[in-house]
Order: sequence, then structure tokens, then C-alpha cells
Amino acid sequence: MTRVYNFSAGPAALPLEVLEQLRDEMLDWHGAGMSVMEMSHRGATYTAIAQQAEADLRDLMDIPSDYAVLFLQGGATAQFSAIPLNLAGTRHAVADYVDTGTWSRKALDEAHRYCTVNIAASAAASHYTTVPAQASWQTTPGAAYLHYTPNETIHGVEFPFVPDVGDVPLVADLSSTILSRPIDVRRFGVIYAGAQKNIGPAGLVVVIVRRDLLGRARGDTPSTLNWESMAAAGSMLNTPATYSWYVAGLVFQWLKRQGGVEAMGRTNQAKAAKLYAAIDGSGFYRNPVEPSCRSWMNVPFTLPDKALDQRFLEGARRAGLAALAGHKSVGGMRASLYNAMPMAGVDALVEYMSEFQRLS
Amino acid sequence: MTRVYNFSAGPAALPLEVLEQLRDEMLDWHGAGMSVMEMSHRGATYTAIAQQAEADLRDLMDIPSDYAVLFLQGGATAQFSAIPLNLAGTRHAVADYVDTGTWSRKALDEAHRYCTVNIAASAAASHYTTVPAQASWQTTPGAAYLHYTPNETIHGVEFPFVPDVGDVPLVADLSSTILSRPIDVRRFGVIYAGAQKNIGPAGLVVVIVRRDLLGRARGDTPSTLNWESMAAAGSMLNTPATYSWYVAGLVFQWLKRQGGVEAMGRTNQAKAAKLYAAIDGSGFYRNPVEPSCRSWMNVPFTLPDKALDQRFLEGARRAGLAALAGHKSVGGMRASLYNAMPMAGVDALVEYMSEFQRLS
Repeated sequence: MTRVYNFSAGPAALPLEVLEQLRDEMLDWHGAGMSVMEMSHRGATYTAIAQQAEADLRDLMDIPSDYAVLFLQGGATAQFSAIPLNLAGTRHAVADYVDTGTWSRKALDEAHRYCTVNIAASAAASHYTTVPAQASWQTTPGAAYLHYTPNETIHGVEFPFVPDVGDVPLVADLSSTILSRPIDVRRFGVIYAGAQKNIGPAGLVVVIVRRDLLGRARGDTPSTLNWESMAAAGSMLNTPATYSWYVAGLVFQWLKRQGGVEAMGRTNQAKAAKLYAAIDGSGFYRNPVEPSCRSWMNVPFTLPDKALDQRFLEGARRAGLAALAGHKSVGGMRASLYNAMPMAGVDALVEYMSEFQRLS
Repeated sequence: MTRVYNFSAGPAALPLEVLEQLRDEMLDWHGAGMSVMEMSHRGATYTAIAQQAEADLRDLMDIPSDYAVLFLQGGATAQFSAIPLNLAGTRHAVADYVDTGTWSRKALDEAHRYCTVNIAASAAASHYTTVPAQASWQTTPGAAYLHYTPNETIHGVEFPFVPDVGDVPLVADLSSTILSRPIDVRRFGVIYAGAQKNIGPAGLVVVIVRRDLLGRARGDTPSTLNWESMAAAGSMLNTPATYSWYVAGLVFQWLKRQGGVEAMGRTNQAKAAKLYAAIDGSGFYRNPVEPSCRSWMNVPFTLPDKALDQRFLEGARRAGLAALAGHKSVGGMRASLYNAMPMAGVDALVEYMSEFQRLS
């Protein structure tokens, strides 16, 4: 058995300790005589597992009690619909969106079905290599909410600030940055995050919503997307993704053992700094993003000639470095450095990049 | 390690062979150096896994090529919304529903948000112990579809026939009976099934839809619930529940090794017959359902005195028989006998029931 360093943007690498525990418990969880996968979500055993996961997440992120924490299905994409359905009220309501790349565009494209979308700012003109300064945004007074994507996984662009939007609820897609560093939850109306990057298996999405925003949903909101109904039912209006929720809980416990989000933030910053320094210092590899907006989580880079790409990827695979191909829409390479990627993985990548350059 | 016989109605027992394979592959799937849980859904390895699962399901159920097979998130409850959103067109369209218990009621309650619901027949007057004969149904000429629930997991009631509805698309919630016996897919417009009973882990729902029914969705259908968009994207419009899809594929391969749905049907019928015979012959236990409508999958039964329930359940647990408490809405006991429950489990239950009766 040889584990690789897996740089996938998502579904992404999980901590080895978590996988080992899943393996050891697969036939019999703590003497229950069954896997967690086989447990009724209504039973006392599973209920305790689910509640522990929520408590650990609240602890890790310092989530105040006036926020509900939901463990739902459908990924961030289902939430692209849920956000206007739960917050915009009617088709005539205006929601502000900041366009900083593929994922913020997907979110606003979906919102068009339910409300009037105002693109408050767009980085399209820069080919999504920067984040528009807030002073330039054209926001809507009384908007139903403002949505932004703090980190764009495809373009590798990250907000260096949390927007200040006054009384307008701030809605953030934290799929790729949740738990990667401390954030102040109180700044946000709604935080949502697909699990498959920093939380656990695909098929789970965590939604953290300030309780005063519950109760605004349209009457035709599907029950499974209705935050108020789900909050009232402890995310068990229907059968949740029980095993994924459990794996998420193990990841939360692993994070606590690592020192929590403060420690992860220090490590993640150091990992990203090392890789960007290697790229910038190489005179060979290139990252196009404005330095102040470079992502800690997703580092895209190009080689001087596309003709080298396949050879780079094949050599990387032989060196135990997996899933480095960039997204098809931008090409080149991309190294995703989520919490489960250790510094040793970055060291191995930097060493391989240097060796590849020397031989090219 | 001691495995119990797990009679949970869902999430439910999985085949031991499948769990053993999941355990053995958890750190390294076939030399990939990672778990299936960590694989990009866009990579060649995972794509092959997903396609194999679909091919095996098509093979097992003999699904014609003019049906799309979707692997979605949100469970059957999300499909309760998706059905009218995809098929009813406008709020003025009429959809026929047959009310035979808790799950058909949940489906029609959700449909009320999107269209006019006609309850074509109801078994409420019998306290859901029978299925209304089709001759008594009040259907709507030109209905958008007719929905029914072939098996009601809580009441233990099963349709002994497939309704004949002419040109109206027949929509069936097969969550608890899919793959438990042969069915003729061609009789149906849409089949959907939450995975957590006969397919795999919770958090996955399989939708089998005749392709001529695609393209009728309302404009405000959330993308993740839009069958046409999902069919066009191979269920990967967004990141699917990758690991659950994989586990489902292992279950499909296990079913093929057992002899497919014909063999499962014979075994399932024999399992149910043995348990009903033990109940009916006991003069102690009781099942209220009309014999022709008794479920093969979910067998509710009561003891002569509710005061015995706790002692029955505690003794069962000590005997390695888990999750026998009936649903809170009906009380008593319930034994769910999905594909992964072997005849030996039914034998152990029948023996325990006899012993409990003798000592009472």
C-alpha cells in the first residue's frame, strides 16, 4: 500500500488518521455490531454521533448560538438555488452578487431563476486574476443579500478581506476555505460549504445561517432546501447523508487534535507561501494572480509551453503526486492544498517541479 | 467483532462482503494510492467506477436504453418536489396521487406546492391496512402523471399489482422495494428510490426516467433537481455523492453474484412468508394488514400488551437482533427484511419471538 499526495481540488484528500479509523470501524462501530452506514438516523447512537459533529464544528469555528448549523445534501450547487429561495422572497427582490470567477458565476446564474440579480462588481476584465476593491462596488440599497465567493478554486483567487455590507445579509460560499483558518462567523448572515474539500466526502453541504434569517422562504421552496424546516428538524426532515456526516465529525475531531483553525491557518499560509515562492523564483513556472489575492487553497500555475504539460503530469504521477491537472476551462496545473495536505506534500511537489525544470 | 442482525427500516444493513471490501480498500483503491472518497469525480478512474455502477443497475433491472438513469442527492424527499417540478409544468396541472400511507402522503403534501393534487384513492379509512382496488380509483383524464408508493415502509403495505394508467406517466417511489424482485421497467414513466434500504448508504437517490418525459421542467426548477440537465451531464452537473455511488455499485455486483433480482425475489418471498407464518400461527403476535397486501420488505407486528414492548426489545438486543422498534407513529415492532438480511436472520428472529412468547 502506497499513499500518494493527492492535490485534487475536490473531492479531495482526507486525513490518513480518519481513513484508518473508518477502515477499522467498518464492520462494527464501537461494539454496535454494525457500520455507521447501517444505522438508523433516528436511533440514539447515530443521534449522538450527529450532535457531536455539530458541537465540534461549533467549537472549531466559534459559531454563536444564534446561528443554526445544518448538514444537508446536494452540495453547494443546491444552495445556489436555496439562497434566493430562502432569502429573496419574490422575483422582484434584488440580490447583489460579486463576480470573481467560475463559482460566483454559477451561483448568480442559478439566482436568476428566482430574483433580480445585480452584479455589484466583476473581475471578468482582469480574466479573474484579482478581486475588485470594495470601494468600486455598485451595491443595491436594501438588497435581499450580498453573495460572494471568498475563494475561487478554478482561478485560484481569494478575497483578502471580508466585505462590509452593513445591514444587508452577507452570504458566502466557503466550500474551499472553511476551517482552513479562523474567521469571524458574526460577520456573515449565511455561510455554506460543500464538504468535499475541507470537511469530508462529497454529498454533504454545511449551512450556517443566522436564525433571524429563517422564515423568509418562498412558499414553493422544496422542503429539502428550506433552511427553516431543516433547522426545526435538526437537519433530519428526511434521512440525511448519515455516513458523510459521520466522516465530517471525524475530520472535526482530527482538526481539534491538530490545534484547531488557528494552527491550520499558520500551516496553510506556510504551505501556500512555499509553493508560490517556488513558482515566482523559478523563471519557468507562472501564476497569473495578483499577489494580494492569491489563494492559499488552490494554486494554479502554467509551464512555459503547453507541450510540456503531459510530460509534467506523467512524471508527477510516477513521483506519487496525483491530480495536478488544472481545470479544463483554464488549463495548466493546479495544486490544491487543503487541510489534509501536509507540508511534506508541498515539499515533494516543489522538489519535483525543480527537478522537472532542470531536465527540461 | 460480532455483527448483529440489523432489522432497521433504513438506513439499513449492507451485505457483509461489501463492507469487507470497503474496509480493505479504504486507504488505497486498487493501487490508486487513495480512497474512492478522495477521487475527483472528473477523473478517469472515478468515471469508470460510476459508469460500471450504472451498467450493472441497467443489467440487473433490464432498464431499456430509452430510460435515463440518474444518481442524485437529497433522497426520495427531494424527488417529492422534483416530480411535479419536472412533470407538472404549471400550478394548474393536475397530478393524481394514490394515498396508501405515510410516504404517499408526504409525496402528495410536497406536490401541493407546485400543482393541483387529486387524491385518486385513499386507504385512510382502513387505517392503511390495505390497497384500494384500481376499479375504485377516481383518476383525472390527461393528468400530468399518477404517483403511487408500491410499498409503505411504516404500515407494511404493498401493492399486489402495478397500476394500469394508459398514457398517463406512472411514477413510483420504489425506495423500499427496488431490486428486491423483478419488475417491468417499461410499465413506468419514472421510478425513484432512496438508496438507504436496498441500494447503499443514505444520501443517494436513483431516478430512472423515460427520456420522452425529459424537457418538461418548470423554469424555476433548481438545477440539482432538473432531470433533463442531470441526464445531459451524466448526473455530474455538480459533484455527486461519489462514495455512496461507489458503494451502490458494489451492492449491484453483490446482487449479481447472488443470482440477480429473480433469486432475490425468491429469497425475499420466502423470508417474508416465514415471518408472517410465525406471527399468524402464534396467537400472540399480530399483523393487521390484509394478507394480499402484506409487504415483503417491512413486517410490522404488535404484542398482546404494549407493556411487553420494552422487554421484547431488550431481549432482542441481547440476542443480537437490532432495530426492531416500530415507527413512532404506529408503535409495536417492525422487522425490515431487505436484500442484505439473510434467511438466517429471519430464523433467529422467529426463534427469539417463540422463546419470548413461551416465557411471557
